[in-house]
Amino acid sequence: MSVLSRELDFQLYECLKADSLTSRDRYHGQSKEDYASVLSAAERLAGDYFAPHYAKGDANEPQFVEGAAHTIAETGEAWRAFAEAGFLSAHWDAEEGGIQLPEPVFRAAMAHFFTANVATMGYPFLSIGAANLLRTFGSEELKRLYLPLMASGICAGTMALTEPGQGSALGDIKTVAEPADDGSYRISGHKMFISGGDQDFSDNIVHMVLARIKGAPAGVKGISLFLVPKFIPRADASRGERNDVALAGLLHKMGWRNTTSTVLSFGEKGGATGWLLGEPNRGLAHMFQLMNEARIGVGLIAACLAYRGFTESLAYARERPQGRLPSCKNPLSPQVRIIEHADVKRLLLTQKAYAEGALALCLQASAWFEDQHSHPDQTRRELAGHLLDLLTPVVKSWPSRYGCRSNDMAIQVLGGSGYTREYPVEQLYRDQRLNPIHEGTEAIHGLDLLSRKVRQADGVGLRAFLNLMRQESDAAEAPLQVLAQALRQGADGLEAVTAKLVAAQSSQPDLALAHATEYLDAFGRVTQGWIWLKQARVAHQALHTADKGSDALHYYRGKLQAARHYFETELPLVHVQFELLTSLPGTTLEMKDEFFL
Amino acid sequence: MSVLSRELDFQLYECLKADSLTSRDRYHGQSKEDYASVLSAAERLAGDYFAPHYAKGDANEPQFVEGAAHTIAETGEAWRAFAEAGFLSAHWDAEEGGIQLPEPVFRAAMAHFFTANVATMGYPFLSIGAANLLRTFGSEELKRLYLPLMASGICAGTMALTEPGQGSALGDIKTVAEPADDGSYRISGHKMFISGGDQDFSDNIVHMVLARIKGAPAGVKGISLFLVPKFIPRADASRGERNDVALAGLLHKMGWRNTTSTVLSFGEKGGATGWLLGEPNRGLAHMFQLMNEARIGVGLIAACLAYRGFTESLAYARERPQGRLPSCKNPLSPQVRIIEHADVKRLLLTQKAYAEGALALCLQASAWFEDQHSHPDQTRRELAGHLLDLLTPVVKSWPSRYGCRSNDMAIQVLGGSGYTREYPVEQLYRDQRLNPIHEGTEAIHGLDLLSRKVRQADGVGLRAFLNLMRQESDAAEAPLQVLAQALRQGADGLEAVTAKLVAAQSSQPDLALAHATEYLDAFGRVTQGWIWLKQARVAHQALHTADKGSDALHYYRGKLQAARHYFETELPLVHVQFELLTSLPGTTLEMKDEFFL
Repeated sequence: MSVLSRELDFQLYECLKADSLTSRDRYHGQSKEDYASVLSAAERLAGDYFAPHYAKGDANEPQFVEGAAHTIAETGEAWRAFAEAGFLSAHWDAEEGGIQLPEPVFRAAMAHFFTANVATMGYPFLSIGAANLLRTFGSEELKRLYLPLMASGICAGTMALTEPGQGSALGDIKTVAEPADDGSYRISGHKMFISGGDQDFSDNIVHMVLARIKGAPAGVKGISLFLVPKFIPRADASRGERNDVALAGLLHKMGWRNTTSTVLSFGEKGGATGWLLGEPNRGLAHMFQLMNEARIGVGLIAACLAYRGFTESLAYARERPQGRLPSCKNPLSPQVRIIEHADVKRLLLTQKAYAEGALALCLQASAWFEDQHSHPDQTRRELAGHLLDLLTPVVKSWPSRYGCRSNDMAIQVLGGSGYTREYPVEQLYRDQRLNPIHEGTEAIHGLDLLSRKVRQADGVGLRAFLNLMRQESDAAEAPLQVLAQALRQGADGLEAVTAKLVAAQSSQPDLALAHATEYLDAFGRVTQGWIWLKQARVAHQALHTADKGSDALHYYRGKLQAARHYFETELPLVHVQFELLTSLPGTTLEMKDEFFL
Repeated sequence: MSVLSRELDFQLYECLKADSLTSRDRYHGQSKEDYASVLSAAERLAGDYFAPHYAKGDANEPQFVEGAAHTIAETGEAWRAFAEAGFLSAHWDAEEGGIQLPEPVFRAAMAHFFTANVATMGYPFLSIGAANLLRTFGSEELKRLYLPLMASGICAGTMALTEPGQGSALGDIKTVAEPADDGSYRISGHKMFISGGDQDFSDNIVHMVLARIKGAPAGVKGISLFLVPKFIPRADASRGERNDVALAGLLHKMGWRNTTSTVLSFGEKGGATGWLLGEPNRGLAHMFQLMNEARIGVGLIAACLAYRGFTESLAYARERPQGRLPSCKNPLSPQVRIIEHADVKRLLLTQKAYAEGALALCLQASAWFEDQHSHPDQTRRELAGHLLDLLTPVVKSWPSRYGCRSNDMAIQVLGGSGYTREYPVEQLYRDQRLNPIHEGTEAIHGLDLLSRKVRQADGVGLRAFLNLMRQESDAAEAPLQVLAQALRQGADGLEAVTAKLVAAQSSQPDLALAHATEYLDAFGRVTQGWIWLKQARVAHQALHTADKGSDALHYYRGKLQAARHYFETELPLVHVQFELLTSLPGTTLEMKDEFFL
């Protein structure tokens, strides 16, 4: 079994008890063995079709030729293999053509692909999100026409939100939609940073476009959601004529090079034909379904890139001999492998804490997503929804930030070699750097968490989460008391700081929110304390059952060591952050443009 | 005046009083105006010959064709312009052909070039270091032959330490030198990661090579230093026949792409001809002159890349409109420029603190270097030497680590645009990542600081530095008392932790040094407190003399704001580090290979 498989099994079954999902109505007849075969199919496919061209796709990014984006052949081969194996629709209802795969298992399967080749996975990632939007908000007619095309990979999907002049401020979207007589709309405007906005391997592409219906109110309350295909399918689902959507150009990224990043022009010849999804003027609310899913997806991607960097640098450290320990004074003694050096161990153990902590957090989020939709108990469904809502900014942002730190450390383990393209860690570092930016920058998520999520529904999500952390702390066995105590202090501090910052928002909104990014980081730091105590408890219990000297025993020892390391080196920093957030200095806010230089 | 010029003037004249150097014998006849014209020549040349191909050199890295490295034409043009302006030898003695430019002024001039194009500057940077080694350790004959070639740019230079199997552990160097009858040596072996090891724009290259004379003792005590030219010059200095040094290949880096990184083979045809520099078996000690200079140089490079990222992201933030402040609820109100957003201000102010703090630290190091060599008072010369020795690991490492953080923030300010190669910040981010690796990784510098530097000469350097910090703290005016008090606590904590760790090294060397990287970071954090209090004191004094509403007043206000920001957000973290270093957990050290997965 691969190391990632072992890790996913620990998270899915030992921590999240995902096998118990088979007792739910929706999953009747499924078994843990079914999940195992899906996961091993994912691993095999990722190894056969995605991993081999990870570097090649980076070195040969898509080209803009005569108004179209051209990709290397391997990208299309991977896309088709992914689609043929049914992964584009595995989580769909049976009646939609899916196999009703539970969310945590589906996301764990995706982890194999993200770890193998994140840039080629950009296309399936966005297509899955776009199809989910159609499943929720599409008319029966649209679903009947497009869902089979999207399941089979004939039609890929994108999310087209961002425009050149607007960036993070979605309320300023300017793309316009004019109603046509046949119930469709004519869309005109420009979108940029649209990932997968064009490519040459799927027969068609469907864009999920935010636009304003002519005469709609200003701001976020006047935005609607449209389905706009590249080619308008005929009634028999065959490819029809080209829609008025043009590829204006490609953006050239530092990483994720094999995913096209496009500038799209809608309506240069009079208006692209689009169909309304959901209600008029509710488009942003609808799009948030995709955005929330994509945010958890970005967290998972960040976790996977960190995990890949961790395993690559671990493999190097196990092979590479260099130098001797400080206590050794004999220059003729043999060199040790660098994994023996304390600082290399530190770099590896910290990566382990970041990568596995991030993975655990994202799969926990998938478990909440699952509970929100399929838990038999309505109270539990609501609770899971509140927790997921609250934590989404953290699930997106913490793995992204610490994923960057983690991939930085992977390079450091390899030293000069890590800085060269002869090894994969520099590509992971470049690919990872997108994650704190797309699907909402860190700053946006900080504001979302502090100004909306912790206050939402009168704070019920936050209270539930604080409860969860305290329960975990209370349940900890004696050898984990130091960790449990530290988590409790973190939760207490978080509660106090949040109350203060929420109160300050009514009197001084700009100042109270000026440190929202710091708050987000502190929130994530405590959250990871909970994640690591949970894992430590499972590992501690399992020590008794594992055979002496077995791989299983070693694995659990490693988990406990990583948990201790996190509590020793990362969690204590939160109290400095709490002090800053309590004193709320105005230093940044008072900084004036003209003082900068 | 450019913003970098303004900043360099502040550091050189307001903080370091570099104009007072003109009163020293060595600089008799020089004036502040002379320095100003050197600096403006550097700025002009950097703008004309280096800046324009920064992106082009990255996109068109050197190619390996028929055993030679080929560069774009602009690289050679920049090299020649740099040489013709006299910058390769400006700091040399008059009798060597230099103009005896003082070190801080010379380094400030280099800052203009590093900021413009660090990758093309790789060649002059290494050549200057190699020439300094020759100046110190070369025989009169070697100096007479090579120095004029190196001053004029006919001959470039490299430092050839690293070998494929040895990396950071210099004691394991295997390259061999056999004495020949004529007093020269025949060198055989392989070197890798040799920057500038081949290129096509200088007539010749001279490699400073570490090798073992046959029969020398094992380890670092058996290493000697050799000068090995690519072409052996004839007695009349014209280019002679090709030496037995071959370019085996190029390494392909993530950044610094326009600096060749080479694998060199010495002696494939029987032995490359080389000449001993300095004493046999003292080569590593000799090479440390170059390495120490290069380490301060790397710190300066890191500072310059951070500074460039800061100014690029500042310019973007001043232009780009997007969104509204949290307190504004009207979606029809005009967008604000993103510099108005609190989190963008935080990202800019933090970059300012990192970049200007790093620059100040490196120029302080140059001032100590200068004092060590030219101060009229011997006690002061010795003191400066002790301080420079002690701080070299910090001067190299702090700007490198926080330069990476800083350039990360520059990308974040630009958002999606920052992630594309259409803007320069992603290149800065890639270029910066080399700095924590080359000229000794962070781990090596942590060990150097904790196991050697703080203990050296019975701790005289450390005591002197603690004194300096306390004097700065005592001298602070009332409005800076909070900062002064925090610096004093930082210095007290550093003293206590150091004593504990030094004591622990005799009983538990491996454990005491296991946290050396953390110690290095904590040391740097306190050092930057000192750097920022110094700058704040100068700025605070200058407030009184600056006209109301003037640019000067704004500049000093910005300095004070950055100082406060550093003391609010960065320095307090050091106490968490001190706790860790005091409790000395064995968690990383106890982590076993087999626990990792």
